[in-house]
Order: sequence, then structure tokens, then C-alpha cells
Amino acid sequence: APLTHFDAAGQAHMVDVGAKAETTRVARAQGHIRMAPATFALIESGSAKKGDVLGIARIAAIQASKRTSDLVPLCHPLALTRVAAGFTLDAGRHRVTLEVTAETVGRTGVEMEALTAVSVGLLTIYDMCKAADRGMIIEDIRLLEKAGGKSGHWLADCK
Amino acid sequence: APLTHFDAAGQAHMVDVGAKAETTRVARAQGHIRMAPATFALIESGSAKKGDVLGIARIAAIQASKRTSDLVPLCHPLALTRVAAGFTLDAGRHRVTLEVTAETVGRTGVEMEALTAVSVGLLTIYDMCKAADRGMIIEDIRLLEKAGGKSGHWLADCK
Amino acid sequence: APLTHFDAAGQAHMVDVGAKAETTRVARAQGHIRMAPATFALIESGSAKKGDVLGIARIAAIQASKRTSDLVPLCHPLALTRVAAGFTLDAGRHRVTLEVTAETVGRTGVEMEALTAVSVGLLTIYDMCKAADRGMIIEDIRLLEKAGGKSGHWLADCK
Amino acid sequence: APLTHFDAAGQAHMVDVGAKAETTRVARAQGHIRMAPATFALIESGSAKKGDVLGIARIAAIQASKRTSDLVPLCHPLALTRVAAGFTLDAGRHRVTLEVTAETVGRTGVEMEALTAVSVGLLTIYDMCKAADRGMIIEDIRLLEKAGGKSGHWLADCK
Amino acid sequence: APLTHFDAAGQAHMVDVGAKAETTRVARAQGHIRMAPATFALIESGSAKKGDVLGIARIAAIQASKRTSDLVPLCHPLALTRVAAGFTLDAGRHRVTLEVTAETVGRTGVEMEALTAVSVGLLTIYDMCKAADRGMIIEDIRLLEKAGGKSGHWLADCK
Amino acid sequence: APLTHFDAAGQAHMVDVGAKAETTRVARAQGHIRMAPATFALIESGSAKKGDVLGIARIAAIQASKRTSDLVPLCHPLALTRVAAGFTLDAGRHRVTLEVTAETVGRTGVEMEALTAVSVGLLTIYDMCKAADRGMIIEDIRLLEKAGGKSGHWLADCK
Repeated sequence: APLTHFDAAGQAHMVDVGAKAETTRVARAQGHIRMAPATFALIESGSAKKGDVLGIARIAAIQASKRTSDLVPLCHPLALTRVAAGFTLDAGRHRVTLEVTAETVGRTGVEMEALTAVSVGLLTIYDMCKAADRGMIIEDIRLLEKAGGKSGHWLADCK
Repeated sequence: APLTHFDAAGQAHMVDVGAKAETTRVARAQGHIRMAPATFALIESGSAKKGDVLGIARIAAIQASKRTSDLVPLCHPLALTRVAAGFTLDAGRHRVTLEVTAETVGRTGVEMEALTAVSVGLLTIYDMCKAADRGMIIEDIRLLEKAGGKSGHWLADCK
Repeated sequence: APLTHFDAAGQAHMVDVGAKAETTRVARAQGHIRMAPATFALIESGSAKKGDVLGIARIAAIQASKRTSDLVPLCHPLALTRVAAGFTLDAGRHRVTLEVTAETVGRTGVEMEALTAVSVGLLTIYDMCKAADRGMIIEDIRLLEKAGGKSGHWLADCK
Repeated sequence: APLTHFDAAGQAHMVDVGAKAETTRVARAQGHIRMAPATFALIESGSAKKGDVLGIARIAAIQASKRTSDLVPLCHPLALTRVAAGFTLDAGRHRVTLEVTAETVGRTGVEMEALTAVSVGLLTIYDMCKAADRGMIIEDIRLLEKAGGKSGHWLADCK
Repeated sequence: APLTHFDAAGQAHMVDVGAKAETTRVARAQGHIRMAPATFALIESGSAKKGDVLGIARIAAIQASKRTSDLVPLCHPLALTRVAAGFTLDAGRHRVTLEVTAETVGRTGVEMEALTAVSVGLLTIYDMCKAADRGMIIEDIRLLEKAGGKSGHWLADCK
Repeated sequence: APLTHFDAAGQAHMVDVGAKAETTRVARAQGHIRMAPATFALIESGSAKKGDVLGIARIAAIQASKRTSDLVPLCHPLALTRVAAGFTLDAGRHRVTLEVTAETVGRTGVEMEALTAVSVGLLTIYDMCKAADRGMIIEDIRLLEKAGGKSGHWLADCK
């Protein structure tokens, strides 16, 4: 498994996907943001009543998925056919989890779109709570699952 | 410390920074990407000879810092006066660390610019190595230090 | 007819269009800008001789159609195959009308692309004439017609 | 009051604001979207319980204000220091009103930023409700007030 | 004169301009596009009567100047205070010349903004005439003059 | 061969490509940047050891190809399936040549994507070396070859 983003001379390129079939491709990614208990309480109550941090982070995540090929230099542009973003609150670890599913019908996978959405969604939570808590940490952004295309189904080991 | 991004009625807004002084503001952020030993070896050798993954990720990080207010909904647009991005290779944990410093002379801080640069830099490493290793994990994106502005100097606890 | 942009739990998502057929889709939208008689005269003469306000607004409208999915959070990105923008001058009401037709061959409609083009075209007229007339009003931006896709042909009631 | 966006030869340019003073500049703009009673009811209940159309439109409006100089060809880029967007529901006319206030400390006004935010906020409502109601009409986008800069305070006639 | 865009270790960065004075900075750049005589005739007549190629290229040039820091990786973002773009037709050489002047009041020069505007303006002419003439050549894009900032006034040798 | 970007009334539009077949389309474009011998030496040594000007310009070129329809007003948006950018150093003329190949499977050609990539790649070299040499000249940006689509294969005359 070499680095496909480089040619034989070591020069970066956007790899040729023109001969790949247009198939349905799905990717699911996840990440967390851990914070102080008081910050967690603000988000938890906010999403119920006022100051909807997670609603705004969800929109930021979805919008970021559409900017992926602008941000990641060798990513192919593609037309997403579905993006969904869901949050889970873990009160014990005062941690918010964001999971994003992205889909397309195209010639290349959407892992980067799902991962970019997760990253920007979590950054948005950081932004909105940073006046209260600068020490928040974004943890363990990873691909959970990938389907479609020649490489077939892939599922992350743990979690 | 309430959530400043919401007004008294709980509605999101871009907070008023018009009365703040234009001062030099600096932020330093960090994150890691952990990978399989073989992937780490590819990056390590690549940055020396051919297939310069880290050189490309550095450019992606710097460019992303300039897109921060496009990505994070309530971020103020601002004119960065300096961005630097450096990588450290930890062979023991086969982990790459990216640290970004961002600066401006303006009315609001640049934490989000530094954090966004770190996130996109690490996503770019993921993208370039994903054909070899889908299980890479982006870890512990956090603010390390912040200076300038009324809130003064802030330094992360650990690390 | 519920709000399809929300799932059963009320969370926003980019709806799944992956199973829809790729068909030719057309949308036609319209809007107006009403102004002082003297401003109208400036535009009218300008488009003939010098200071081509409408020529510039047409370009802005076409370019904006390509940015729609960047601006409207839950819009799908798509590849427009045609955009045309035409102006009509109504000297009696000193009002300029902009009508835009957008087309694609894809899985989802182009109403938002046509409406966004109309909006930005009219904003551009406002911008270029605002030194002369701050009281201009952008009126009645609406969809006129829509064709293609499962929902079939739709034609606005009046006008 | 000629068209300042053209030079003596009738050629468009971005006008020189380099000699203008950096002052606080504010603009307030407004627009409406009128819809079928059933659509209005969906939005009204939604903003209370689930399917927060207005929360998402508010974010779209704020983000669009930051893209103004990308969309309107001869607009100067500028660093907004505040953007706030508020909705009013008029049950009698089943109409939603969006009012946006934009501010900067700079050399040129922010009318276009406020007007662009209003336009995109209303387009977002259209997008989210269009499956239920294609006949919605965006009405009367206009500047309400402008302060700061050499031209001084301006207040719209009516409303 | 070393390459300032790299640090002592050879790593790219966005150079620190935070300590530079905010002064008026001007840059003037130029480029040409040479074409078949018949294509030149189309542009020449078009700009007089219908099919205003140069009017559209002028708008594209001005808009591109605002995207410079998005396109050129290590460019600082800055707020342009003036951009003007003028065309000259050379019937003898059937060549169109585009000259752009860009200005800001800031901490860094605007050479790249002027050069980017020239490049995109000429690319737009190519795009609009390519159905008639694929052999057009964009020639001699260069900086003509630069003023403001510590490095002082610079004037190109020839032409 | 008229100007297809204008309708019968001389008004610009994005031409209708909806009826064209989706075929593989390729374009190859080229340009040069000429500089002082000392600047050429900096780039030459830099690409070997430290300060990788060409590596960064390659990334800028690839990324710019993805922004083409944002920059060139009447260009159709399309999903590139491959982009490759290669440099050649001509020590005799102290000139760097950039050649870009772009491909898509779509309804319209990718000439503008290849030409835009070349332009921005060369602008990036200018940016990174301008502190050493303001007199660099970007020369002879042109299409070399085009294949796919109804107009068939096209090859530039000379070179």
C-alpha cells in the first residue's frame, strides 16, 4: 500500500478516478469534544432551552462537508447526495460525540467529507463555548465505516 | 462564564467586538495523528526523499487558517499577519504532531484560526495516507497558548 | 407535506437524493427592484451607453447560482448545465425585473440556484446605484416554474 | 448623484476608499417571506419544538454576511465586527420578517452585508419549506437605517 | 535576497507582517492575450455593440483580486481599498492588454492582488473566445510598479 | 465561429450543455515564468534541499483547478477526475515551465481548469520569489492539447 497521491517521481497529483465506476459510496466518521463539567452543563441545558450550540454545530458540519475539496488539497470534488450529523452527550465523561454519515453516487469515496464535517462541527462547539472554557479537547476523530467502490466494505476495529 | 455567542433570548449572533482595542493577538494550537507503524515509516521516509506528505499538509493548514470564518459560523473575519506550522515525528508512538501559531493585529483572538489550521493539516495527512491505512486517528486537538486582548495570557494546563 | 429537511427527531440533515433518477431539471425564478425615477433613468441610459449596471448584475447573478450550495446550508451541490439571466425595464413603475433560468441533469432540482441568482443579481443593482438612491426595494422574489424530477411540472399561480 | 461604480469612461471599478476615515459603521436591513397558512404553522411550531427552520436561517444569514464581497462584484472586502439577525412572525399575514444589523470599524459602509444576510436568510427559509410550499414569496428587502461615515445617518421613509 | 517564505529550516510559513506599519500600498500589473485576427475583430466589435467580452473580463479581474489569498497559499489576506482594470486594444498585433491597479491601506503589498486580477481577467477572455480560437496565448504578465511600504517605490525596467 | 457565450441579443449566459454526452475529456496547458539567474538558482537548489517553491506551486495549481468555475464567470462547474502538474527547469533561459493535465468525465471540456491551474501555479512561484526578484515575467500561457467531446482532438501548432 504505497502513497497513491504521489507519482513515480514523488510528485503530488490528484489521482485519476476517471475509469472508476459510479457507485453509491457511504462513509461514517466520528469525533468527540471533552470539556469541563460546567461547560457540558451549559451545552446540555442550552440544547433544550436556549443557546442551541449543537444545532449550530450540526449546520457547520454539514456545510463543511461541501467544502472538503476546497480544504484538502488532493481531494476530488464530488456531489454529495446525503449528509446527516448526530450528537450524543456523555454526561459521565462530560464529552460530546459527533457522528456524521456522508453519501454520494460517484467515482470516489466520501471518507474525507465525513471526517471534515466531524472536525468542523467540533471546532464550532469549541468556538461557541471558548469564552467559558479554553481547555476543551477534540478527541479521536476517526473513520468508523466505509462502503461502496472497489475496495469494498471497511469497518473500524474498535468502538 | 455564559455562552457569549447567544443573546439574552438565546439567539445566536456574531458578538460585537467593535469597541475592543486593536492589539497583537497570538494563539498556538496542537493536534496529533496516530497511525500504523508502516504508515508512519512511509511519511518519515517520504518527507526526506519523495512524496512529501508533511509539506503538503503544512500548506493545507496555512490555507485553512485563512478560511476559518467561512467554516465556523460565528467567527469574525480577520486579517492574519502570521501563520507558522511545524511537525514533530514521534517514532515510538508512530504519531505525527502538528503545532500551528497564528497571529493578527485586531479586535479579536485567533484561537479558531490556529485550531482550524491544525484540524485541516491533520485531515490532509489522513487523506494522503488513507489508501495505506484507514484506521488512523486524529487525537487531542487543543489550544496550547493564547496572548493578547483583554483576557490576557492563557496557557494550557498540561503538555 | 412535512419539512423534509428534518429527520423524525427534528434534526436538520441534507436529505438523501441518492436513489433519485438523473433527469433534466429546470427552474425559472423572478424578482424586481423598484427605485426612484431618477435612478431608473440612470440605469436605462447606462445600459445603452456607459456604466452598464445590468451587464454587471447579470454576471453576478450567474456566478451566484454556482455558489448556492455554499450559501444555503442544506442545499445539495450540483453541476449546473445552463444559466440565463434576462432583465426587463418597466418605465411606468421605474422597476427592473430579473428573470433567471437554471438547468441541470441531476438528482435534485435547481429552484434554489435560480432564486439565489435572482437575489444576488438584484443586490448587485442595489450596490451599484446605492450612492444615488438608498431607498430602493427588492420585491417579490419567487419561483415561476419548475420542471423535471418526480414532482413534475409546477407553474406559479399568478403573473 | 451619479453612479460612483463607473469611471468617467463608463468602466466599472472598485471605488477608492483609501482616503476615508476608519469609523464605526452600522447598517440595518429587513425583508419578509410570505407563505401559505399551513407552511407558516409548520415554521411556528417548528421553532418551538422540533425542526428549527429559523435557527438555521439565522446561521445562514450571518454566514452570508461574511461572503458579501465574494458575491457582489464591486463590494469592498471588510471585517465585520458584529452581525445580529432577528425574526418576527406575523400570523395575520402568515409572513416571517428577518431584520439584520451589521457593523464594522472601517472605511466603507455595511449596507450590502446587511442586505445580503437578509436575502440569504430568507432564501434558506424558502429552501427548507419548499417541499411543502413552492409559492412562497420573498418581499420587500430594503435598507432600514445606516449610520457612520461621511454621508451620515440615513433612515428609511416608511415602516 | 533569500526566499522569505521559508524559515531557517526550509519550512514554508506565512511571514510575520505584524510589526509593519499600516501604509497606503499600490501595485500596478499588466498582461496581454494574443489571438487570431478574426477573434480580435469579434472582441473589438463586441465591446462596441453586443457581446461585451471585455466588460465581463473586467468584472472577473476585480472579483479575482478579492480571492488572491484563497488562491496563493502564503499570501496574507487583506482588505483592498481600490481596484481598477483597463483594457487596450492593439489592432496591429491583434492583442488585448489588461492593466490592473490595486490599492490597500495595510501591512503588506498588493502585487499579488494586481497580478491575480490580470491573470483571471485574461483567462476570462480566453474562455469567452475559445469556441472561436483555441490558440490564443496569454503573454507577459508582470508587475509594472509598486509603491508604499518599507521597500519603497519600484518600477519595471522596460515597457 | 461566433462567441457562444452570448445569446442572439448579445447577453452573456452560461451556455446549455445539458444535451451533450458525458465523455472523458482531457486538456493539457502550459506556461512559463522567466526570472533573474540568481532567482532561478534559488528555486533550483530549493527544490532539492530546502524551501520547496515548486512543491508548493504544484499544490496551488491543483487547488486552483478546483476553483475555476468560481473565478471564470461563465465556466460550468464540473467534477475533475484527475489533475497532474509537472515542472521543467530551463537553466539556459532561467525559466520554469509548468504543464498541467486535467481530466473529467462530463458534458464540457476542461481547458479552463488546466489553464487556471497553470496561471495560479506560476503566480505562486512569483509570490514566493518576489522578495528576491520583482521583475519576473509569466510567459505564454496556452492550451497544448484537448481531447474528448464533439469538437474532437485539438493540438497546438507549435511547441
